[in-house]
Amino acid sequence: MDGSAFDILILGAGPAGISAALTARARGRSVAVLGSDPMRSALARAERIDNYPGLSGMSGWDMLAAMLGDLERQGIPRITGRATAVMPFHGRFMVSAERDVYEAGALILAAGTQQAARPYPGETKLLGRGVSYCATCDGMLYRGRRVAVLGLSAGSEADRDFLKSIGCQVLYFTGTQAKNIEIQGEEKVTGLWVNGEEYAVDGVFVLRDAVAADVLLPGLDMSDGHITVGPDMATSVPGVFAAGDCTGRPYQIARAVGQGNIAALAADRYVKEHEK
Amino acid sequence: MDGSAFDILILGAGPAGISAALTARARGRSVAVLGSDPMRSALARAERIDNYPGLSGMSGWDMLAAMLGDLERQGIPRITGRATAVMPFHGRFMVSAERDVYEAGALILAAGTQQAARPYPGETKLLGRGVSYCATCDGMLYRGRRVAVLGLSAGSEADRDFLKSIGCQVLYFTGTQAKNIEIQGEEKVTGLWVNGEEYAVDGVFVLRDAVAADVLLPGLDMSDGHITVGPDMATSVPGVFAAGDCTGRPYQIARAVGQGNIAALAADRYVKEHEK
Repeated sequence: MDGSAFDILILGAGPAGISAALTARARGRSVAVLGSDPMRSALARAERIDNYPGLSGMSGWDMLAAMLGDLERQGIPRITGRATAVMPFHGRFMVSAERDVYEAGALILAAGTQQAARPYPGETKLLGRGVSYCATCDGMLYRGRRVAVLGLSAGSEADRDFLKSIGCQVLYFTGTQAKNIEIQGEEKVTGLWVNGEEYAVDGVFVLRDAVAADVLLPGLDMSDGHITVGPDMATSVPGVFAAGDCTGRPYQIARAVGQGNIAALAADRYVKEHEK
Repeated sequence: MDGSAFDILILGAGPAGISAALTARARGRSVAVLGSDPMRSALARAERIDNYPGLSGMSGWDMLAAMLGDLERQGIPRITGRATAVMPFHGRFMVSAERDVYEAGALILAAGTQQAARPYPGETKLLGRGVSYCATCDGMLYRGRRVAVLGLSAGSEADRDFLKSIGCQVLYFTGTQAKNIEIQGEEKVTGLWVNGEEYAVDGVFVLRDAVAADVLLPGLDMSDGHITVGPDMATSVPGVFAAGDCTGRPYQIARAVGQGNIAALAADRYVKEHEK
């Protein structure tokens, strides 16, 4: 196993995740933030945010940079990558991301609205049987074969190029092209429908910024595409908390930061109770 | 009537109130913040805050100054004073503070833990009958008479001096001295017990940073000394919302800011529905 172990692992490096990380650290916890590059998020492209106290009037880019600077100054590790699976394991959690595995006593889901994205028809059923969320992890299985890449996140072109470089035949669809998707196959992937046209493929790489929360963690209660949380940001899975846009509207930085704070305090209590 | 009318009036000028004000303004609302000077609060004396994203590592003083700077840059009026009474009036609210009256379509209570302070025995019963929250408003009624001042807020000495200057005989108790208080009287104030000793007085000025929320607004549901709120920060009184420490623990800046944001969005919706 590559990777490391933490008291609290946070999935998502936006305002909610950063807030949770700072509070977890303030409580003396070992903590890390795992997520795609926040500087490629929609927030980073916001021209001006007027209602985040203390930094109002800043661009999204500058605000995120200031927040990420806080992580760095406090030595909180930031791991760039997407979590692709979560497994409860002896009262702790194992999280796969790219080709590493991380271990944590509690998780905080804070990957934004992307984490609320609905899987395509066939996606969940065929996950691990032709559907993959990670080109670098699974690409070698498809050498010399035909695969489709649904490039829904900012770094997808690099994954497409990687797959080509190892000898896959790659059909590439951007987020704008990838509408009305259906993944075909019974025991394994045999094809892909895109806007009414069928393509015969052996694999489909679905490259979102984040994997849907209830695919990542089966059994997680969702409502209207958002993770269901209680007042202390606990989800339906003990030891798993959530904060920010993935828990529902309004999508606001101040709200995300507040929820990250509450989630971290609850996760700290959870870890403390399970240390006994 | 002196004062002004606003869509949304916010009681409390700390992080929760400032956050609510910025979001109300971002929604195009006329808004003002009414409260005691936040630079005299406990937060302003905090040496260092490490878990507010974007400004971590700052002193409480600098952080508050940055937040107040946001209000100023956006031209949001800040009124220094204590609200002493709230009255629902034709679907709107009238708020007395010092010697002015303000009108608003919705209120956000964000006065911190002080707003959760319990009234002393006798205080609520004798309010307006010898008990006063405002020296400049009611002082003249006690010219040449003996009054007690319970100086529980940072600006109380100025009120004591004012009462002396207009010819009151003043017994002054600081927050440290004013323990085990009981206000005596049936129809009107006749005396004050302080730590087992009785003083004959005609009036008692209780000078907190903020008046207890359910004294300010009778009928407001409280629980364990905190204002009861729903998920959108609505209190039990329609049109009145609450945010920050007055709603309960944990007392954290990030949480207060998040709740202020949510309360302002809910107050905006409330005002919109009542404009119809």
